[in-house]
Amino acid sequence: MIRFSESITSQQDIDVVVGENALSYLREIQNKKAIFYSSSVNIDFIKPHLEGEYTLVPIKDGEEAKDIQYSLELLKVLFDGGFDRGDYVIAIGGGSVTDTVGFIASTYMRGLNLINVPTTLLGMVDAGIGGKNGVNFGRIKNIIGTFYQPRAIIADLRFLISLPSEEVRKGLAEVIKYGLVLDKELYDFLALNKNSVLSKDPESLEYVVQRSIQDKLSVVKEDERETKGVRIVLNFGHTIGHAIEAGSGFSIPHGYAISVGMVCEAKIAEEMGYSEEGVVEDSVWILSHYNLPISIDELSSKIDLKEALFALSKDKKVRNGVLLMPFPTRIGDWKRVEVPIETLKGFAEQCLK
Amino acid sequence: MIRFSESITSQQDIDVVVGENALSYLREIQNKKAIFYSSSVNIDFIKPHLEGEYTLVPIKDGEEAKDIQYSLELLKVLFDGGFDRGDYVIAIGGGSVTDTVGFIASTYMRGLNLINVPTTLLGMVDAGIGGKNGVNFGRIKNIIGTFYQPRAIIADLRFLISLPSEEVRKGLAEVIKYGLVLDKELYDFLALNKNSVLSKDPESLEYVVQRSIQDKLSVVKEDERETKGVRIVLNFGHTIGHAIEAGSGFSIPHGYAISVGMVCEAKIAEEMGYSEEGVVEDSVWILSHYNLPISIDELSSKIDLKEALFALSKDKKVRNGVLLMPFPTRIGDWKRVEVPIETLKGFAEQCLK
Repeated sequence: MIRFSESITSQQDIDVVVGENALSYLREIQNKKAIFYSSSVNIDFIKPHLEGEYTLVPIKDGEEAKDIQYSLELLKVLFDGGFDRGDYVIAIGGGSVTDTVGFIASTYMRGLNLINVPTTLLGMVDAGIGGKNGVNFGRIKNIIGTFYQPRAIIADLRFLISLPSEEVRKGLAEVIKYGLVLDKELYDFLALNKNSVLSKDPESLEYVVQRSIQDKLSVVKEDERETKGVRIVLNFGHTIGHAIEAGSGFSIPHGYAISVGMVCEAKIAEEMGYSEEGVVEDSVWILSHYNLPISIDELSSKIDLKEALFALSKDKKVRNGVLLMPFPTRIGDWKRVEVPIETLKGFAEQCLK
Repeated sequence: MIRFSESITSQQDIDVVVGENALSYLREIQNKKAIFYSSSVNIDFIKPHLEGEYTLVPIKDGEEAKDIQYSLELLKVLFDGGFDRGDYVIAIGGGSVTDTVGFIASTYMRGLNLINVPTTLLGMVDAGIGGKNGVNFGRIKNIIGTFYQPRAIIADLRFLISLPSEEVRKGLAEVIKYGLVLDKELYDFLALNKNSVLSKDPESLEYVVQRSIQDKLSVVKEDERETKGVRIVLNFGHTIGHAIEAGSGFSIPHGYAISVGMVCEAKIAEEMGYSEEGVVEDSVWILSHYNLPISIDELSSKIDLKEALFALSKDKKVRNGVLLMPFPTRIGDWKRVEVPIETLKGFAEQCLK
C-alpha cells in the first residue's frame, strides 16, 4: 500500500492511499459520515472499515445520477440527517458518482469534508482526482459545478479485480496519456509490463495508479482553476477525442475516442513541427500494445465527419478563432501551442475521414 | 473616490471601489457581461458606464430571489446567452441579490468572474463582501452555497442617497460592530461624526464604508473558509441577535436585533470577566447615539423568550455543549471564548425577559 499527502490549496492537504487494502484508511475517520455509493458497487468489504456514526445511502449511477434535481434530493438527505460542516461525505463509485457527490459536498453548507473512493480505473486515475465536479441541468451537461478538493483519495485496487479487462483498457488510455506528455518513466513501465498490467497484477496496478495520481495532482497543483494554461495538458487527445465522440453520437467509449485522439493530435504536432521524430511512432506503438484503437477504422461506430468537425468548431476553449493545445514534444514532455481552428479542422479532416 | 486591491486567495486580487462615482469602474470591463439587477434598483445611471457586449436581466429581490429553482432559471439565462468562463456576471442589489448571483457565478461552468455592486448600506459593509453566498432549498435557508470571492466590490454611494434614513441606521449596526471589536479609529469617527453620517454626507459615508470593507476583508483574509476561528469575530452580537430574530418570528430587522445582541453579549463578556471596564457603557452609548435599540423594550415586537432560548440551543455553532464566542475586550479588540451553552442561556434569559 502506498500513502502520501499532497498540498494543492492553502486550505488543506489531500491524503492519497493506493493499494489492495486502501479502504482501511476509513478507520481514521471517527466523525459522522454519509456514504453515498453506487448501487452497482458491492460495499460488503467497506463496512468492516467504518467506525463511528455513519449513514449508508445507495444512489443512482451514470447520467441519471448527474441531474441537478437528483443532487438536491441527496442534499436533503444530508439536511435530514443533521449533517454539518465538520462531518464527512464519502463518494464510492465511478466518475458520475464522484462528480455528483463532489458537487453536493462542496455546496452543502458551503462545503463539508469529502472523501473520494473511485471504483473504476478511469475514476482512480482521472475523474476522482483534481477537484472538478459537475452536474447536468436538463440536457446541458456539467453546466453546474465547482472546483473542490477532497480531503482524501482512496484507490482500493480490489474494486478493479472484478472489472472486465475491457473496462481496465478504457482507463488505461488516460494512463498512457500521462506517460506520453508528462511521465517518461511511466511510459517505460507500461512498455515493459503489459502482461502484468493487463492481468491486473496488484503490484503493477499499484504503481500505475499511484504514478497517474501523482502526475495529475502535480499539474492541478500548478493550475487548480485552469487559469494559468497548465491544466490544459490533461486535455491531450481530448480535443479530437471529443470530436470523435460527437461524430459517433456519443456511442464510442471515452477511452477509445481519446486513444485515436492522441494519435491524431501527435500527428498534428509533428506536422506543425513541434515534436521530435518518433513521438507519433511511440504513441501509436504503446496504444496498439494495449489493444487500444489508433485510427477511426478500428472503432465500432461510423464517425459522421460533418458532426465531428462541427463539434470542433464549437469547442468551448476556442478564443478568437484560436485554440490552445498541448502538444507532445518528446515522450514525457509537452508544449502549449496556439492552433488556428481552421488549421486544426484541416488536420482533423485527414485523421477522421 | 477610494480604490484599493486586496488579495484574499492565491487566485486573484479583489478590487474595491468606494465613492459617489464608483460605478465608473465598470468601464474597465470590456468582456461580455450579464447584469443581474434587483427590479427595485434604478439602473439608469448604470447604463452610461457599460462598455462592450452586455445583457441586462432584472431579477426578483428578497427571499423569493433565493430559491434554488430560481437560481437554476438564472443559470439558464447565462447558458442561453452563450456565456463562458472568461465572461462577467455583475450583481446589483441588496444582500439577497448578491447571495443568489454569487452562487450562480461560482457554479456556472465552475465559476466565472463576479462583480458585486451592493445597493444598500448593509450590502456594502457586510453581505456583499467576504465571499459567502447561499440560496434556499424549500424552507431550508442558505443550505446551498459556496465560498467565492468577487473580482471587484463596487460601493457607489449614490445608491444610498435615495434610501430612507432608517435603512441607513439598520446598516450602521454592522458598522458599529466593526468599531467595537476590530477598529477603534472607526468607533472614534462614528462617535464624533453622527450628524454628517446620518445626513449621508458623501465624505463621511465614504470613510465609514471603506473602513468597514477593509475591516471585514482583513478578517476574511486570515480565515476565508471559517476554519481557523478568526472569522467568528464577525459574529459579534449575532448569537443573541439571532435568538431575538427567532423569538420575534423574524419580524425584527436584522440591524436592530444585532444592536440589542451586541449589548447583551458585551454584558456577558463583562460579567464573565473578559472585558475592561467601560466596554458595555461605550457600546450602549454609541448604539443609542445612533438611535439603535439597546434593549428588547425598544423593539417593536414582543420577544417569545422560550422561542429565543430554543433557537440558542439549536445554534449550529454549538459543539459538545460549548459555543465559541467573540467577546470585546476593549473598544477595537476581541478575544475568542468558549461559553457553555447552559451558561449562555442563563445570561440570555436576563437580557431577553
